[in-house]
Amino acid sequence: MALALSLGRRGQGSCWPNPAVGCVIVREGRIIGRGWTQPGGRPHAEPVALAQAGEAARGATAYVTLEPCSHHGKTPPCADALVAAGIARVVCAIEDSDPRVAGQGFQKLKMHGIEVTTGVLSAQAARDHAGFFLKTEQGRPLVTLKLANSFDGRIATATGESQWITGPEARRAVHAMRARHDAVMVGAGTARSDDPSLTVRDMGVSQQPVRVVVSRHLDLPFMGQLARTANDVPVWLCHGSGVDAERARAWGGLGAKLVPCTMQGIQVDTVDMLQQLGTAGLTRVFCEGGGSLAASLLANDLVDELIGFTAGLAIGAEGLAGIGALGLNRLAEAPRFDLVETRQLGKDVMHRWTRTLR
Amino acid sequence: MALALSLGRRGQGSCWPNPAVGCVIVREGRIIGRGWTQPGGRPHAEPVALAQAGEAARGATAYVTLEPCSHHGKTPPCADALVAAGIARVVCAIEDSDPRVAGQGFQKLKMHGIEVTTGVLSAQAARDHAGFFLKTEQGRPLVTLKLANSFDGRIATATGESQWITGPEARRAVHAMRARHDAVMVGAGTARSDDPSLTVRDMGVSQQPVRVVVSRHLDLPFMGQLARTANDVPVWLCHGSGVDAERARAWGGLGAKLVPCTMQGIQVDTVDMLQQLGTAGLTRVFCEGGGSLAASLLANDLVDELIGFTAGLAIGAEGLAGIGALGLNRLAEAPRFDLVETRQLGKDVMHRWTRTLR
Repeated sequence: MALALSLGRRGQGSCWPNPAVGCVIVREGRIIGRGWTQPGGRPHAEPVALAQAGEAARGATAYVTLEPCSHHGKTPPCADALVAAGIARVVCAIEDSDPRVAGQGFQKLKMHGIEVTTGVLSAQAARDHAGFFLKTEQGRPLVTLKLANSFDGRIATATGESQWITGPEARRAVHAMRARHDAVMVGAGTARSDDPSLTVRDMGVSQQPVRVVVSRHLDLPFMGQLARTANDVPVWLCHGSGVDAERARAWGGLGAKLVPCTMQGIQVDTVDMLQQLGTAGLTRVFCEGGGSLAASLLANDLVDELIGFTAGLAIGAEGLAGIGALGLNRLAEAPRFDLVETRQLGKDVMHRWTRTLR
Repeated sequence: MALALSLGRRGQGSCWPNPAVGCVIVREGRIIGRGWTQPGGRPHAEPVALAQAGEAARGATAYVTLEPCSHHGKTPPCADALVAAGIARVVCAIEDSDPRVAGQGFQKLKMHGIEVTTGVLSAQAARDHAGFFLKTEQGRPLVTLKLANSFDGRIATATGESQWITGPEARRAVHAMRARHDAVMVGAGTARSDDPSLTVRDMGVSQQPVRVVVSRHLDLPFMGQLARTANDVPVWLCHGSGVDAERARAWGGLGAKLVPCTMQGIQVDTVDMLQQLGTAGLTRVFCEGGGSLAASLLANDLVDELIGFTAGLAIGAEGLAGIGALGLNRLAEAPRFDLVETRQLGKDVMHRWTRTLR
């Protein structure tokens, strides 16, 4: 199952809106088939592994990281495929929370005399499928917030200089993280000041993550990296109400998808925005700041994972804060996270946290 | 020598103005004497180890972490003691940079037919004796700057609430760090808002570090922890020019030592201040903020070691910055540090850095 989980994670970032499932087929102690959800979400992990196993699948055991689907979507149900292939036993990590599946996949397998064991490495599976489960259950994707800051929590100098605070090893790690997410998201300020391309480089990915920019007024440069490449790699612009129609049309013409969102005060409402992104199919979003967007996500309790890169330099209080104003009255109200891991990455410290459950 | 170094570090924080030296005496592969500089700086490590070895020292080898002194201070020269005890060989980590010793200790030993080997584990010895060397060579103590901050580099909320950002394990580690320094230093703002006692608790230390408060105008509460306990554990107040004479007298009456310093703009000049603290005998100072003092030390390139504790909570940009304004124009001007170690401490991340040599 550990192997199946690790295979499944290969699909993260490229198989949305479908879950990134892994499947291993074992017969008499030998692995005869391995599969994971393919780019675009089809075929699913099980048919890939079954095809590899061929006739040998008859009487074998299938390890699957998520309950096999039982409904006809764009592909026939995987439960049927397992039955048809003559699988004798299915070991599964976790039940699917999609109401179209939710236990019915297991039921179908059992009805056909397949032995079903579930709950194997379910904690890891819950983490791996968290984005898919959040989308199914709450309608929004998982949000990873990444901040690369100085020792004193600054992401740029007062004049906006931010390249480079962290070193090449940290930046490479960021590209690997981007590749594991369906979309990379930044605020308009970051898009304007850094003119980032937000693509995954030097990782050999089959599918680039969607680039999401949150810009209330759509006031983004038409001559920037994003505008120039919007036809090659998707650019989605989340904007507020009352944007200039001309500007919206221009961005549409450049190939960007416009995502109108409701407002929360003078900012785009990140709760509504994530619902829209969930509806559009995203399961995992990687937010790289800036400070206002980070603060809005934190204040709305929407950050599931927090990743910090801390560099060994001090910028001082005039520098740009990595997290904007949160409006806290008391320390007890501060959004809290539990440490998952910390380690040295080049000359920087990487620390990864998950939201504290209260 | 590793044992001698580790014994030597036991004296850190309690033997100033003298260096924290360790000594191990070995005869025929057996340890017959162990010593380190005692609280208050006397006796030195060598006589302690020699006394333990007794007559057996004749013909033995002494491992010493710093060149034995050759001059008559408040104790007779250790070089003479080693000669008198009949030591046959001295293995030393590093030469003393004190001009009263600087090679003369070794010379005296050799003159009496003792074989001298030096440079053994000298890099570690240079780190351990860095405070003593800095005082001897530059007239100022070593400065360790510690900041316990939120994920976003804040040390308190906008309303000044700071207890507790980090957890009990991190706070306990801070007490152990305080114990290894001659003095604990804070700015006036921190002294006023937190009313700290700045003592080492639950560590069984024989001597508390001096409490140093940097307060330009001496505007500190007479009813606080520091005022109440100034007769038990030393309180040194570093102030600027033109302080109220009445207030200065009152603090003197409470038992505090006043350290008048020159000004740098509207702040106490931390360069001059550290020279004064060096003259007063301090070799290792542990600074715990706040933001203005930290910024002044960093801007004047006076921070030798930087220790961060990062907690998994976000306070937001209105919170109090751990490092005040530095007045940087470019990222290239930012004070830089090299990572020494990072690890989890309770629920927090500890990261330790040393100044990057340029």
